[in-house]
Amino acid sequence: MRLNMKKYVQTDEWLLIENKFNPTDNEVTESLCSIGNGHMGQRANFEEDFTGHTLQGSYVGGVYYPDKTRVGWWKNGYPEYFAKVLNSVNWIGLRITVDGINVDLAACEILNFERILDMKRGILSRNVLLKLSNGKKIALSSTRFVSMDDEEIGAINYTIKAVDDDIDLQIESYLDNDIKNKDANYDEKFWDSKASNFENDIKYISASTKKTFFEVGVSAITNVLMDTLEVISDTFVTESMYVSQLFHVNLDAGKTCKIKKFIALASSRNHDPQSLKDHTSNKVITAKTQGFDHLLNSHEQKWAEIWKWCDIKIEGDVEAQQGIRFNIFHLLQTYTGKDSRLNIGPKGFTGEKYGGSTYWDTEAYCIPFYMSTAGQEVARNLLVYRHNHLQKAIENASKLGFSGGAALYPMVTMNGEECHNEWEITFEEIHRNGAIAYAIYDYTRYTGDKSYIPEFGLEILIGIARFWAQRVNWSEVKKAFVMLGVTGPNEYENNVNNNWYTNYIAKWCLEYTLSCLENTKLQFAHEYNDIIKNTNLIHQEEVKWTHIIENMYLPEDKTLGVILQQEGFLDKELMKVDQLDLANRPINQKWSWDRILRSCFIKQADVLQGLYFFEDHFDKATIKRNFDFYEPMTVHESSLSPCVHAILASSLGRTEKAHELYLRTARLDLDNYNNDTEDGLHITSMAGTWLSVIKGFGGMRVKDDCLYFSPVIPDKWQSLSFNLRYRANNIHISFNNENLQIKNVSGPSIDIFVNNTKFTTSENSSTLINLDKAVLH
Amino acid sequence: MRLNMKKYVQTDEWLLIENKFNPTDNEVTESLCSIGNGHMGQRANFEEDFTGHTLQGSYVGGVYYPDKTRVGWWKNGYPEYFAKVLNSVNWIGLRITVDGINVDLAACEILNFERILDMKRGILSRNVLLKLSNGKKIALSSTRFVSMDDEEIGAINYTIKAVDDDIDLQIESYLDNDIKNKDANYDEKFWDSKASNFENDIKYISASTKKTFFEVGVSAITNVLMDTLEVISDTFVTESMYVSQLFHVNLDAGKTCKIKKFIALASSRNHDPQSLKDHTSNKVITAKTQGFDHLLNSHEQKWAEIWKWCDIKIEGDVEAQQGIRFNIFHLLQTYTGKDSRLNIGPKGFTGEKYGGSTYWDTEAYCIPFYMSTAGQEVARNLLVYRHNHLQKAIENASKLGFSGGAALYPMVTMNGEECHNEWEITFEEIHRNGAIAYAIYDYTRYTGDKSYIPEFGLEILIGIARFWAQRVNWSEVKKAFVMLGVTGPNEYENNVNNNWYTNYIAKWCLEYTLSCLENTKLQFAHEYNDIIKNTNLIHQEEVKWTHIIENMYLPEDKTLGVILQQEGFLDKELMKVDQLDLANRPINQKWSWDRILRSCFIKQADVLQGLYFFEDHFDKATIKRNFDFYEPMTVHESSLSPCVHAILASSLGRTEKAHELYLRTARLDLDNYNNDTEDGLHITSMAGTWLSVIKGFGGMRVKDDCLYFSPVIPDKWQSLSFNLRYRANNIHISFNNENLQIKNVSGPSIDIFVNNTKFTTSENSSTLINLDKAVLH
Repeated sequence: MRLNMKKYVQTDEWLLIENKFNPTDNEVTESLCSIGNGHMGQRANFEEDFTGHTLQGSYVGGVYYPDKTRVGWWKNGYPEYFAKVLNSVNWIGLRITVDGINVDLAACEILNFERILDMKRGILSRNVLLKLSNGKKIALSSTRFVSMDDEEIGAINYTIKAVDDDIDLQIESYLDNDIKNKDANYDEKFWDSKASNFENDIKYISASTKKTFFEVGVSAITNVLMDTLEVISDTFVTESMYVSQLFHVNLDAGKTCKIKKFIALASSRNHDPQSLKDHTSNKVITAKTQGFDHLLNSHEQKWAEIWKWCDIKIEGDVEAQQGIRFNIFHLLQTYTGKDSRLNIGPKGFTGEKYGGSTYWDTEAYCIPFYMSTAGQEVARNLLVYRHNHLQKAIENASKLGFSGGAALYPMVTMNGEECHNEWEITFEEIHRNGAIAYAIYDYTRYTGDKSYIPEFGLEILIGIARFWAQRVNWSEVKKAFVMLGVTGPNEYENNVNNNWYTNYIAKWCLEYTLSCLENTKLQFAHEYNDIIKNTNLIHQEEVKWTHIIENMYLPEDKTLGVILQQEGFLDKELMKVDQLDLANRPINQKWSWDRILRSCFIKQADVLQGLYFFEDHFDKATIKRNFDFYEPMTVHESSLSPCVHAILASSLGRTEKAHELYLRTARLDLDNYNNDTEDGLHITSMAGTWLSVIKGFGGMRVKDDCLYFSPVIPDKWQSLSFNLRYRANNIHISFNNENLQIKNVSGPSIDIFVNNTKFTTSENSSTLINLDKAVLH
Repeated sequence: MRLNMKKYVQTDEWLLIENKFNPTDNEVTESLCSIGNGHMGQRANFEEDFTGHTLQGSYVGGVYYPDKTRVGWWKNGYPEYFAKVLNSVNWIGLRITVDGINVDLAACEILNFERILDMKRGILSRNVLLKLSNGKKIALSSTRFVSMDDEEIGAINYTIKAVDDDIDLQIESYLDNDIKNKDANYDEKFWDSKASNFENDIKYISASTKKTFFEVGVSAITNVLMDTLEVISDTFVTESMYVSQLFHVNLDAGKTCKIKKFIALASSRNHDPQSLKDHTSNKVITAKTQGFDHLLNSHEQKWAEIWKWCDIKIEGDVEAQQGIRFNIFHLLQTYTGKDSRLNIGPKGFTGEKYGGSTYWDTEAYCIPFYMSTAGQEVARNLLVYRHNHLQKAIENASKLGFSGGAALYPMVTMNGEECHNEWEITFEEIHRNGAIAYAIYDYTRYTGDKSYIPEFGLEILIGIARFWAQRVNWSEVKKAFVMLGVTGPNEYENNVNNNWYTNYIAKWCLEYTLSCLENTKLQFAHEYNDIIKNTNLIHQEEVKWTHIIENMYLPEDKTLGVILQQEGFLDKELMKVDQLDLANRPINQKWSWDRILRSCFIKQADVLQGLYFFEDHFDKATIKRNFDFYEPMTVHESSLSPCVHAILASSLGRTEKAHELYLRTARLDLDNYNNDTEDGLHITSMAGTWLSVIKGFGGMRVKDDCLYFSPVIPDKWQSLSFNLRYRANNIHISFNNENLQIKNVSGPSIDIFVNNTKFTTSENSSTLINLDKAVLH
């Protein structure tokens, strides 16, 4: 069921190739071909002026603005501000004028067009042949990257060829900070000018954000060559938010003018604001001196190293191969794990929708990816991030009327403060608290790191447990603890009572907190005492938690043998997604909200999210019954959904269903399933795609400090291979439908279970296992 | 329990007297002392400049603007526009300058201050003694009204006295159309200038609303007298949105300067825009010629006539007396019933909060008031208003996914289009549809008018019935029709399942529609055939309606013997309002939204609203059990709530509880119970106050074409008396705790039941009944 999907780029293992200019879908391709390096990134905008559909977007990690909250009707508890990812200085700009005509792809005839994102090398390039309104043809080419080797460096190699006629060419290379966020609540601009100047051939601009006072400075050098001669220019423009340098060239027919633009961009998050100018000037001079090819080479080498470890290979299915690399590529260029103050924004550097950067996506989806690819420290940083925000989470809960150190982490945040403002989400989608506790558990289970909990985790868990203990109430009718007025992961239900997922994870949080308290008391007595003292935890609280655990209401239907997503779910008119006319999809763009809410259709895994997290609490038959009940009602209009279903489908042996769901998650943006790729990519769900391969087809699990695999492979795939960092080992796994090979690339000898049979692999050795019998060859 | 209330004006039978200037609460008194005449009205703003807290507000009936909807997160189905009551031309302005100092009550020493609304005569007056920054004292007095005799006329009598020193006085009498709505969504101005000029001593200004093109023109003449000499002025200012005339007077100590300002205001709703200038000029010349006293006299006479019939007298309780007159006064000056295109805005002419003008308040609360005081035609006009909007209601339903002529009336509207934008209200508070059907029933029951249903009502009922038939769904679990995802009258619950009130009124609507169809078929065969043809009603629809009626799910708890407000209500932690600390009240200003939603606290009558509407469907014991269950949980933070509780309390013999609730509804704004009077008054709920007297203490009902009374009277009250128009009769009722007197003021002989005993009263006769035994004296 590949509904409403559309091909924007050609299918290729490593490349995204758009070989025809599609002006109406330009914003989609701009999103798809975005480039970034963890520090900064940008959409695949054109360097030259463009008056067609475009979202001009350049972003700098961690630079945000608290935009005044906009709502129709204010409700108590709403946050005053909504932190926005800031659209920042446009440094790619090259304004090209030919015979006095501004080159603008929206205003000329395009004879040839090619835009390519090379994911292997992290390079965006473009080749265009166009005919201007005066009839003259020119050929443009551009190669651009933001360096993975030095995150403050970006470079463009841009050429202009006069095809058949002599042309009078003017090039204005500029930095523009007069930038607005498309989604600014009150159409305000968020940047104040700090400096703008042109000295010694270096263009420099800096601006500072209002209220948050992040300063971003960029130095640029532009180098224009005619044949081998450098074109000299002293002509420049400096305005408060703009600096540019103008070059004039008489270009003979058949000749090519070559432009190289080097930039260094730094922010006050990493540097003294006073030093930004000198710092970036020095860096850009070095960059220019090293030259474009050298910089590109270092950048490509970095990507080669990254891919060496992070690549997943799928043989036999180029669509699937392209999809997984697309996902991994964007994940890796969004977050590198170097900076524990950063997190994984839902759109990364590809767009500005959804203010804020950190959702529960980080804990539920991203941590496993970074843990297995980038390593334990990166994942730990993501967890420390939440510890840094614990006090804010306690304040957030107290704004909503909770007390005594109860912590409610925000739905979305930049600095620990809530910045969402739909009551049904902000106040009610509280299961996010559970995902944070789950991530601590998941991290500890995978890494074996015993120190995180006493050092950071337990305080978080106590805050979360306290929240749940206040959020439930005793129902005299049910003689049980109930949780009223919540929104579960399936946001197509609002303000429901007893969402099973929320109740279950709340109960589990209390159990896990009690068990961590006990373990810490035994193993880290000193830390334990400090924590008890800091949190003022008293015994009665633990007694109450136990009482709640023993009496939590968990809705189910015994007749059908299914868990109930929430109380009353069976009152709905139950339908299957395939009964819906395609014209109704996606329902969130076609139906009114009340119709969505009343329907049985599920936005994203909800009961199934719980069964995925806690699969070892349930027998296979229960998981199967619930999968068969809920999967057909799920519209997957959240990007976080198909990956979870894919994992469950794999584990239930529904391999072809898993393959369909895998393509949906892997190619969600590539094929624009939910008709929203133009706003930016769904970065966090890309980690879910990775999970659908590793935990889904690979069947990877960690149980009792051991690594398990239960491989399955779709008919179309010849083989699947991937690497994992697991504790002290680096492991390579590859399999087809007959054999699985384990390579213990580095690390001590290790026991690995394949289809529940144990195999021991020593360093540098390979083990080939016949999957039919799970026996060693 | 008079929580958080505060006295803003003195207690008096006919007057609101504020005898001390209270700058922080000025906006509250501005609301309380607003004046209007159905056509136009204004807040009790000062004529002179004022830089303190104020909401300058002048409003013209039916003049609105479709402001672009503002929400935080758009949801499908939201209306594009939100119609706003427009703040309109300020015509009261008199800028007073003394010795070059602008007179501004916020910038001088106030030695004496009195602001009085005389409700008997419909006059706002003010007396102020103040000391300017140069040490000189001046005395100001002002008397202002908008004429009840000629709705386009307003007049001000304003005097300035130099108390101890000679002063140099300048008076700038102006009309200002450069006006903004305080609640404009994007801070835009909604008026375009049309004309502004000064000719023959007449100031004229006109402006037209953007998008809706309503034009409002005002002519003003200002007359300044020193002793008996007229001060002549040719000095004027005309700007595009402003026109003024300047007078200069040297005022000796002890002398008084007298200013009279006459205005005529007309709108393109009633006149050709081309004629506005001539029309208002002619009218204002006549007004000036007649003179202030003459105009005032005609105005007072009208009010005397109105009060003669509409007054309610309460002896023995001045607070209660002032309260009821305050409510009646504002109702009568908001809507006179002359114009069937108008309706009763929730804030009348007293403020601009809540865009739109027509809520279900009109049907559920206001129609009975106008039906009994202003007469049948006025009430019929209010019902015709909804018939005029039927097509829009069908379009509104179809936007939400309903089809086949299903009609959903908007939550709030100006022109039939929805203009609310909270999903939980707009899409889910659908019980409003039921109130419209109920009003048709209520009107027919009271007036005996048989023609409204075949002429207008039945088409409305069919549209509404069709909506309910699509809005329910069959629950396989319950083997009943359920209604999921609604918000009942109690807006402190959102998106609940099976709100009893909504399910019950939906079922009743289907029953009533079927019975109206049958009656119309029998009695108005011709009209019936037309309606069936116009609506394409088919027999299967009626069969389905019957099936729904027979199988509608109505939640109840058999153990407690109570109706359930909604499914799951008993899962809440049940508390009583008096267990709440006062610091938590009103909860809608103190608690976060989720906390309110989870709590058991009830904003306004919900189950009890249903028991009030359909009391004859239930036995007294059931009503009592439900009253005792729900009343203690009700916070009455909707103005529509205490009146309904008061009526039920009266009928249950809880007379002192009824008295407490009566004071709460009658003095809601006067004592600012819910801390929001500054935004304007709760006009529609004032009709509820009237109901609490007539249906509450008077126990008035209509059954089987007869009028019934079951009087009860609070201990403190000596007597209660009121008039009713009932069909061909005008009836006066007065009673104390011993006797009730019926006067058949006009009309044929009529049977009236008092405490279920029948008494026959012929025209012009009185009947005195001993209440102990309900026997004739």
